[in-house]
Amino acid sequence: MKYGIVMFPSKKLQDLVNSYRKRYDPHYALIPPHITLKHVFESSDDEIKTVSRKLNQLSKQHHPMKIHVSKVSTFQPVNNTIYFKVEPTPELEQLNKELYSELPGEEPEYSFVPHITIGQKLSNDEHSDIYGQLSMVGIDHEEVIDRFHLLYQLENGQWTVYETYRLGEE
Amino acid sequence: MKYGIVMFPSKKLQDLVNSYRKRYDPHYALIPPHITLKHVFESSDDEIKTVSRKLNQLSKQHHPMKIHVSKVSTFQPVNNTIYFKVEPTPELEQLNKELYSELPGEEPEYSFVPHITIGQKLSNDEHSDIYGQLSMVGIDHEEVIDRFHLLYQLENGQWTVYETYRLGEE
Repeated sequence: MKYGIVMFPSKKLQDLVNSYRKRYDPHYALIPPHITLKHVFESSDDEIKTVSRKLNQLSKQHHPMKIHVSKVSTFQPVNNTIYFKVEPTPELEQLNKELYSELPGEEPEYSFVPHITIGQKLSNDEHSDIYGQLSMVGIDHEEVIDRFHLLYQLENGQWTVYETYRLGEE
Repeated sequence: MKYGIVMFPSKKLQDLVNSYRKRYDPHYALIPPHITLKHVFESSDDEIKTVSRKLNQLSKQHHPMKIHVSKVSTFQPVNNTIYFKVEPTPELEQLNKELYSELPGEEPEYSFVPHITIGQKLSNDEHSDIYGQLSMVGIDHEEVIDRFHLLYQLENGQWTVYETYRLGEE
């Protein structure tokens, strides 16, 4: 089965992001707005129990973390994804690093750029238009995230939560 | 914020249900296939922390439970929802009962009919057609569910998981 690990930001931020995704993100219906901590990886039913125990241990060694959503950005020229940039912090980077070093799954193809997608699979023209508009609106938002989730993917592409891990709590 | 409590069945069953929901359920994109344990209730950010602690305690007093999905059924004449019937068991009924008696939220309007929706908001003609077809295909499936989830609803109707509770584990 295909698994992934994400953080969901606050409802307030998810609502804002969805107001854009509705129009600009074809994955809008597959998963609520999120920060990807570990990209899709394969795991068996047996193996995932070990993974889940590991995640539980690992989550206790961290603490709830402040995130700062600082601006609208784009992955161009790599692709036409527009996103809210989440400022990297040592805490976020350490968690991301451990999710790769401690768990099965391939090494990430790109370095970790924490973000919340607001639009993707856009044509070049759409991309310039929308990026231009959204950059002018901008974003500057801080909040604390105290949990992350392990999800699995259904055949239709939709994601279901398998388990929640709270940061730092015992 | 609006909260609800659900169980997600296995990926296999979710995939089967989605193959129908895709065509017959306008809520298809809002949440993966599920069994509702407690209908939508309002709770504040503060109150939900108490609710979550309560759910954690409560989940430990139960055990993973076998569910038997026994047939295709309909809520007609109450409404045109078509669903996979989940046979009621004392375990499932007890959990449902406690989620109402121990937590905030109004008493349920109808008695607990555990089910997984496969179609809803159908016209009368669609309903008879689809119900006739699906009844002939039928379903007979058993599995064990070992967790449930507390979710909150976004402004667009989409549901995000807040927390996962594992049944019976300490």
